[in-house]
Amino acid sequence: MSDISAVKALVFDVFGTVVDWRTSLIADFTKWGETRGIKADWTALVDGWRAVYAASMDDVRKHPERGYVILDVLHRRSLEKLVAQLSIQGLSEADLHYLTMGWHRLNPWADSVAGLTRLKTKYIIGPLSNGNVALLTNMARHAKLPWDLILSAELFEHYKPDPETYLGAARLLCLPPEQVMMVAAHNHDLKAAQKLGLKTAFVARPTEYGPLQKYDFEAKGDWDIVARDFGGIAERMGC
Amino acid sequence: MSDISAVKALVFDVFGTVVDWRTSLIADFTKWGETRGIKADWTALVDGWRAVYAASMDDVRKHPERGYVILDVLHRRSLEKLVAQLSIQGLSEADLHYLTMGWHRLNPWADSVAGLTRLKTKYIIGPLSNGNVALLTNMARHAKLPWDLILSAELFEHYKPDPETYLGAARLLCLPPEQVMMVAAHNHDLKAAQKLGLKTAFVARPTEYGPLQKYDFEAKGDWDIVARDFGGIAERMGC
Repeated sequence: MSDISAVKALVFDVFGTVVDWRTSLIADFTKWGETRGIKADWTALVDGWRAVYAASMDDVRKHPERGYVILDVLHRRSLEKLVAQLSIQGLSEADLHYLTMGWHRLNPWADSVAGLTRLKTKYIIGPLSNGNVALLTNMARHAKLPWDLILSAELFEHYKPDPETYLGAARLLCLPPEQVMMVAAHNHDLKAAQKLGLKTAFVARPTEYGPLQKYDFEAKGDWDIVARDFGGIAERMGC
Repeated sequence: MSDISAVKALVFDVFGTVVDWRTSLIADFTKWGETRGIKADWTALVDGWRAVYAASMDDVRKHPERGYVILDVLHRRSLEKLVAQLSIQGLSEADLHYLTMGWHRLNPWADSVAGLTRLKTKYIIGPLSNGNVALLTNMARHAKLPWDLILSAELFEHYKPDPETYLGAARLLCLPPEQVMMVAAHNHDLKAAQKLGLKTAFVARPTEYGPLQKYDFEAKGDWDIVARDFGGIAERMGC
């Protein structure tokens, strides 16, 4: 715990922290599949997709000579492999695009919009996500997330938890790291942010991974705020 | 004139197009000067400040070896010179900071917020300004500009009208240039955007420079839209 009275901006992890990607994608694809007459185990696709998320970013990290690759492209590459593995038949190019763009159409947790709206009255708020700028912009319009600005790994050409992302966000905001608070449902994200001097807030999202959830049921670090939901963070921040 | 039906996003020049920097700054500094007991010809300061704006960015453009310098820093450097030239006495470090941050506190033209709000119902909207990210973010909060995202020259480390800014905006939006419309009160800004394939909208702001205004009283190019104000652009874009 430390002094949070100097905080001027809160930046948010998005997938899992602000939006419920798993429930959103499974519902979206199930409904769409019925309309399109495509049969598939959409839950297996969604869980499999997220399971290769970290590895797909690691691949970019390990090969800087290939240049930065945005998350939409990584999502698409992973999808093509999964479709083959799961033997999903009859998907056109437009279908693959529709599925990939599913990550732009995620719905917020029940407390997200109200909590962000409260926090915005006193603080600058923005995502700080591995999602690319267009993804986060489209998602904000879809989910009515009232961001002041879009901060994305794409702007720094580094994926979290690379230091460039957290320090880059503070730099663009013209704030020292200790005036920026990272909000996440993932302890490892907060650990990286805290190491660089950012303030930290943890909110548990115990159903993020459904029955597959293995960790992040609770705070595992000395975070500045541990709250039940975004309303709890707003409360602690005096909003 | 060309087909604008494919446009998905509108990006806006800000100083002069969205906000009335001259009236805002003169009013702000006059009121503040009275409170602080600082006597100065604030109109001369503001006009002089803007007069060296283009040259200050040219200097960055001509010296890439020195690295990119954000507009807040250019504003501060120009201010220090002008304060000496105009013999303004008694300004502390905090005062110089307050004046520089004046560019974060600009007020919108009367039609700006209503027009942007209409356009946002159908299109992605963002600034595409030489102002740095923090400046544009603070200004949006101050002036209640309902941007979806903040696009700034700072993200591309190039000032307009360098091509990197217009093409960089399209790239971050994941849109081809022809699906992005540049909105400006300055013909030279639209000329640069059009050359790169962006669509263009002109709105005259004939009082931007007060009695010093010399050009941009009217459209001087084959712009896709020429409107009286932002409401007129919304009308033309079907909002």
